[in-house]
Amino acid sequence: MKTLVPEEGDWVQDRVTRITDPEDDRLSAYRNVRERDLVGRDGRFIAEGKVVLNVLLSNPAFAVESLLVLENRLAGLSEQLKLCPPDVPVYCVSREIMDAIAGFPMHRGILAVGRRNAPLSIDTLIDTMPDKALAVALCGISNHDNMGSIFRNAAAFEADCILMDETSCDPLYRKAIRVSVGAALKVPFAREGSIEAIVTKLQTAGFNIFALSPAGTTDIYHARPSRRVALLLGTEGDGLPNFLLQKLKTVKIPMSRSFDSLNVATASGIALSRFSRFSGL
Amino acid sequence: MKTLVPEEGDWVQDRVTRITDPEDDRLSAYRNVRERDLVGRDGRFIAEGKVVLNVLLSNPAFAVESLLVLENRLAGLSEQLKLCPPDVPVYCVSREIMDAIAGFPMHRGILAVGRRNAPLSIDTLIDTMPDKALAVALCGISNHDNMGSIFRNAAAFEADCILMDETSCDPLYRKAIRVSVGAALKVPFAREGSIEAIVTKLQTAGFNIFALSPAGTTDIYHARPSRRVALLLGTEGDGLPNFLLQKLKTVKIPMSRSFDSLNVATASGIALSRFSRFSGL
Repeated sequence: MKTLVPEEGDWVQDRVTRITDPEDDRLSAYRNVRERDLVGRDGRFIAEGKVVLNVLLSNPAFAVESLLVLENRLAGLSEQLKLCPPDVPVYCVSREIMDAIAGFPMHRGILAVGRRNAPLSIDTLIDTMPDKALAVALCGISNHDNMGSIFRNAAAFEADCILMDETSCDPLYRKAIRVSVGAALKVPFAREGSIEAIVTKLQTAGFNIFALSPAGTTDIYHARPSRRVALLLGTEGDGLPNFLLQKLKTVKIPMSRSFDSLNVATASGIALSRFSRFSGL
Repeated sequence: MKTLVPEEGDWVQDRVTRITDPEDDRLSAYRNVRERDLVGRDGRFIAEGKVVLNVLLSNPAFAVESLLVLENRLAGLSEQLKLCPPDVPVYCVSREIMDAIAGFPMHRGILAVGRRNAPLSIDTLIDTMPDKALAVALCGISNHDNMGSIFRNAAAFEADCILMDETSCDPLYRKAIRVSVGAALKVPFAREGSIEAIVTKLQTAGFNIFALSPAGTTDIYHARPSRRVALLLGTEGDGLPNFLLQKLKTVKIPMSRSFDSLNVATASGIALSRFSRFSGL
């Protein structure tokens, strides 16, 4: 007896476009994603995995251009497919085709091409900050793992935004998004100009800037936050430039003198936890 | 006029053994280190880079079996070479040979084969703990990056030891040592048996165990440490097993309800910073 209501599986199968040729032009955006990871993409980016896809679909600042899904992952994606606009193609391939296109074994089996509607300017982003706010400012963070981890921490502790200078790497690179567990698509950010310009804009907007440095003068467990706080972090190795450390309030995470070396993302986690509204300060 | 005192360069050149054949048997321990990274080595391990080498040379719990150095890195290594026992061979090769042996571009140009004198047992390590102590206990940490980062944090906050169950990965894998910036060769650790056995031994030794969990009942900013504290961390994904969470004091890092996801290494950093003697608690 034929059922009157189509089964979930039927609906999903009707929504997808099966592709069996790895050279199919419709998949060009997914080709060799690992090698192309270091190339700018005009606001387009690759999102991997179901958790990241959920964040992408829930943030109106981003659009989904298409999905590429491994055939055996389709069944678990019906909720996400319902959230995709009908004109967004959903391509479905076998494991063999998926790996051939991506250029390496794609264990997650779920890829999306996303697009940022328009990059925010530092000014616009600062203008949207609430009266009580926690911002993160980054100078020269060039490692995508660190960038992704900083976003993950910022989301976990509900920082209001991340501002970064133009020498910092793009948080929308595939690996940064993946390491951020989607937070790079959640926490509002702007990336432009020099760190001096960002510092000046934050000060003008009433932010109390805490520059994190192993040589900082105030212990973070003694520093008292004001209504608007910005945590300023520099790259590992060189850290923040001296001229900034000289003119700003510097804070340190108290630690061993014989091993005073923390990863910058870990430092961001400790400082964000301390200054977030969740710490009860 | 000939100088009477040999120049630094001469001394270093006399100390090293030049090798020009990538198939030379004396380099077999260095062959394809990346692929062999996942293979047990009877207490032997690969240390990379000058910072890690310094830690290796300074810890009597480890021995150096040999060094492999890129020719253009020799000049900066004279201090380290003086610390190497005279019977430890120092092999020197060109960039071409180095990359051919390692199986990938070895940017650091400094490799050492180290050996652990003997693994510590959990009992022995707990017996050496001072009256006031901070321990880290790990259950099922299987990612070498996380393991390395946890060691780095433990060194930065001067935890006294790291105890881990047999399902946790080996901190002496090349990548874990590298990510730890040498801390895997600095912080005393033991790895054996079940997490239940470790918990029981810690309790018997008077440690107050704080089990970290997003569902923990006490906020870490409200928890008060006792003289002997052990921070217990479980793997990402599954976290700590329920039977442990039910019988132990559980603590949580307070964070967002809509994005309650921290990397386990970052969580270790936040908790270690909070409970270390440096926080002033």
